[in-house]
Amino acid sequence: MKFFQPYAPLLTDLYQLTMAQAYFLSNTHQKKASFDYFYRKIPFKGGYTIFAGLEDVTDTIEAYHFSDKQLGFLEKKGFNKDFLHYLAGFSFKTDIWSVQEGEVIFPLEPVLRIDGNIVECQLAETMLLNYINFQSLIATKASRINYAAQGRLLSDFGLRRAHSLGGIHASRAAIIGGFHSTSNVIAGLWYDIELSGTMGHAFIESFDNELEAFRNYAKAFPTKSIFLVDTYNTLKKGIPAAIQVAKEMEKDGHRFIGIRLDSGDLAYLSKKSRKLLDEAGLQYAKIVVSNQLDEKVIKSLLDQGAPIDIFGVGTSLVTGNPDAALDGVYKLSMAEGEPRLKISDNIAKVSLPGQKKILRFRDQENKFYADAVCLVHEGQPDIMIHPLEPTKRLLLNGYEYEEIMVKTMHQGKKCYESLSVQQIAAFSKQRLSQLPLEHQRFDYPHIYKVGLSSELHNLRNSVVASKQL
Amino acid sequence: MKFFQPYAPLLTDLYQLTMAQAYFLSNTHQKKASFDYFYRKIPFKGGYTIFAGLEDVTDTIEAYHFSDKQLGFLEKKGFNKDFLHYLAGFSFKTDIWSVQEGEVIFPLEPVLRIDGNIVECQLAETMLLNYINFQSLIATKASRINYAAQGRLLSDFGLRRAHSLGGIHASRAAIIGGFHSTSNVIAGLWYDIELSGTMGHAFIESFDNELEAFRNYAKAFPTKSIFLVDTYNTLKKGIPAAIQVAKEMEKDGHRFIGIRLDSGDLAYLSKKSRKLLDEAGLQYAKIVVSNQLDEKVIKSLLDQGAPIDIFGVGTSLVTGNPDAALDGVYKLSMAEGEPRLKISDNIAKVSLPGQKKILRFRDQENKFYADAVCLVHEGQPDIMIHPLEPTKRLLLNGYEYEEIMVKTMHQGKKCYESLSVQQIAAFSKQRLSQLPLEHQRFDYPHIYKVGLSSELHNLRNSVVASKQL
Repeated sequence: MKFFQPYAPLLTDLYQLTMAQAYFLSNTHQKKASFDYFYRKIPFKGGYTIFAGLEDVTDTIEAYHFSDKQLGFLEKKGFNKDFLHYLAGFSFKTDIWSVQEGEVIFPLEPVLRIDGNIVECQLAETMLLNYINFQSLIATKASRINYAAQGRLLSDFGLRRAHSLGGIHASRAAIIGGFHSTSNVIAGLWYDIELSGTMGHAFIESFDNELEAFRNYAKAFPTKSIFLVDTYNTLKKGIPAAIQVAKEMEKDGHRFIGIRLDSGDLAYLSKKSRKLLDEAGLQYAKIVVSNQLDEKVIKSLLDQGAPIDIFGVGTSLVTGNPDAALDGVYKLSMAEGEPRLKISDNIAKVSLPGQKKILRFRDQENKFYADAVCLVHEGQPDIMIHPLEPTKRLLLNGYEYEEIMVKTMHQGKKCYESLSVQQIAAFSKQRLSQLPLEHQRFDYPHIYKVGLSSELHNLRNSVVASKQL
Repeated sequence: MKFFQPYAPLLTDLYQLTMAQAYFLSNTHQKKASFDYFYRKIPFKGGYTIFAGLEDVTDTIEAYHFSDKQLGFLEKKGFNKDFLHYLAGFSFKTDIWSVQEGEVIFPLEPVLRIDGNIVECQLAETMLLNYINFQSLIATKASRINYAAQGRLLSDFGLRRAHSLGGIHASRAAIIGGFHSTSNVIAGLWYDIELSGTMGHAFIESFDNELEAFRNYAKAFPTKSIFLVDTYNTLKKGIPAAIQVAKEMEKDGHRFIGIRLDSGDLAYLSKKSRKLLDEAGLQYAKIVVSNQLDEKVIKSLLDQGAPIDIFGVGTSLVTGNPDAALDGVYKLSMAEGEPRLKISDNIAKVSLPGQKKILRFRDQENKFYADAVCLVHEGQPDIMIHPLEPTKRLLLNGYEYEEIMVKTMHQGKKCYESLSVQQIAAFSKQRLSQLPLEHQRFDYPHIYKVGLSSELHNLRNSVVASKQL
């Protein structure tokens, strides 16, 4: 969101700035460092995550500078004047390697790496985590909903229940995950997303009856009307009124789009509505439904044969319900040319040292088979080792692979072509089509294999051993 | 957030604008209307909700106008030119009656009413719901965490897992609900909130060992240092290093603040750490803990006697986990002087017609006892009737009461004094202190009584009957 960039340097945790000052005052701020972004747990008990939010990160880094007002605020908070002078001249000279937006990603693989000095890396952290964790969560939710909808159109109706301005990025991420449109007008403007909407109950209630309300709406939107039919009694009042006005519109050479159901049993009402519309010769009328939908409700509706054309999905999409957040983290992996990591009693929380790349292997059907995390200088590994259970190994000889991280920033400048959200969505769809369906199903999906090269595995062990002395 | 106000007219659902055009083209846009905001379900299985977000709503309404760029976008989307001309001159002339920010509110009571023309009311809807639903959710979560923390300090550490820019309002709402500080620097600037922070693992890892890292941090922040002690081994390495540097600081006449634990068993480690610190004569050292905390974990830690001074709470605070959203809605209650409502098969979803006020009654101990929703012209009702189960009635004779809604906007201008977030927090704390504890406990809290006056109850029944004919 370009409008926010002037404010972005303060969209951070205080400790990034205090650590930066401590580096500066100890004259260690030029130390070279690498940090990895990765996540640990797939949301929604699913089998994959869709990576999103990169464009906001690179845009923010490119435009990053502290304003006088921001520096004045930090001065009032007691920051050191020499350090503030340094910040006044600060800009990013970092390189970033990353998977592309829309990529299918899995736990523990370091899908983004930033190489820079230690201060640059710290100042990027909070913003990067904020943007990527959230948009990836929502793109993943949208992707699941899209899977359930089996090709039917999906519209994001979530702005009123979104987390404040987070709703804007939610609408962007929804498109990346496979939604077709949004009701969110500002997201439509900023991301060039198709807008959609129907009418609210208040519109109906403000007129004396549904006939009058539908007629007035049809006059204003003779080709774009979707009549909301559940204000008083769907089958006895709403649908008959919609049919009557649609017939009147036909006489003027117009067609309404269809009707929307927003309450009651949507399977029952959609079937009954379809029948009434068809009997009236309105086979072209679409049925839109909304009301607390998510991927499981949509699957159930379609399993019941509900003749629904368009789903409007709100709260559960834009909030990523029932998972509140993607648990992505950002960990130091190199400092001054030396591999670094955080140790933990829990092996799952030990980070991976060194600068790394990800090789994605394909199976005989040319589908995604396994991802191997290797050190950047390595060639094709013969085997990969399970990151948490080292006795589990997978032979990789004879499998084709691709490197999935690309250079996205060079010395603080973007070095990839920005794509529209629709292009990112198309890329994501294409990538997802290569992920075997057993990783996409909702219940107990097959776990995609991610492993470490022997060299990385050994490096981690030796660094852990050296730090535990 | 004042920086967002120029963009706010498009922070809306498309259908608000299409309905507005339909009103305009049918020349019904000057129709007088009233809409209510209310919610249905208390989040977190709790006994109350804290109302928040009002200031953003009134600020936005006061500053609201469409820019040429926004109107140009709507024109490209096919909106009618006469309607766009009307929007170009549009500003709000509405009145708003509302409970104050920080008030304790309950399901089904209409805590905010907007009186204006129908277009004004529609254009306010999405923004109002977005701001109030989210901030009320987070203020309520913060209030619960504050209850669990029994007076210990609370800091918001959630920005990296917040829903994009929603994290800014989350930090504001956290303070309203009882948090003391935030790590979110931009929220600190915009809302004048106290900032807090410690250091990250990367800071430690970037130096050769913890001693060196702590010394360099202490040099930069001789009076504000909190050492993170769990990077390698908390009790064998981190705490001894922290103690050694703290002792060195004492020789220079300085004191560190304390230590932070961010992993492992926080009850066990905090007790062992306290003992080591005390044995070293560092009784003044505070213990800060973080790592996936919420009100239940905090309660458990304190039940175990964990000697923790400060809790840093992140994800579950700023996302309102496990509830994704407050289910607040906005319903037409009057049009052209006539009461209106939406009918539903579910009585819980039938809205309340007419312009209303809320009387809050007190019990013999002067605590909150029950809220009666009445029509604005009514005096003190003798009884109130359960909104969903009309055989349940409560006698109100002899109880003291207060009206809890106040006029907050007059003809589009704020007519109340804006309070700082700290003042709102103080008001909220004072109101919560009047809510009996049985409504505040976590497990199966006692349900607070909300009812309708007989007159309102009868009005609802008669309007429902007339619409079902």
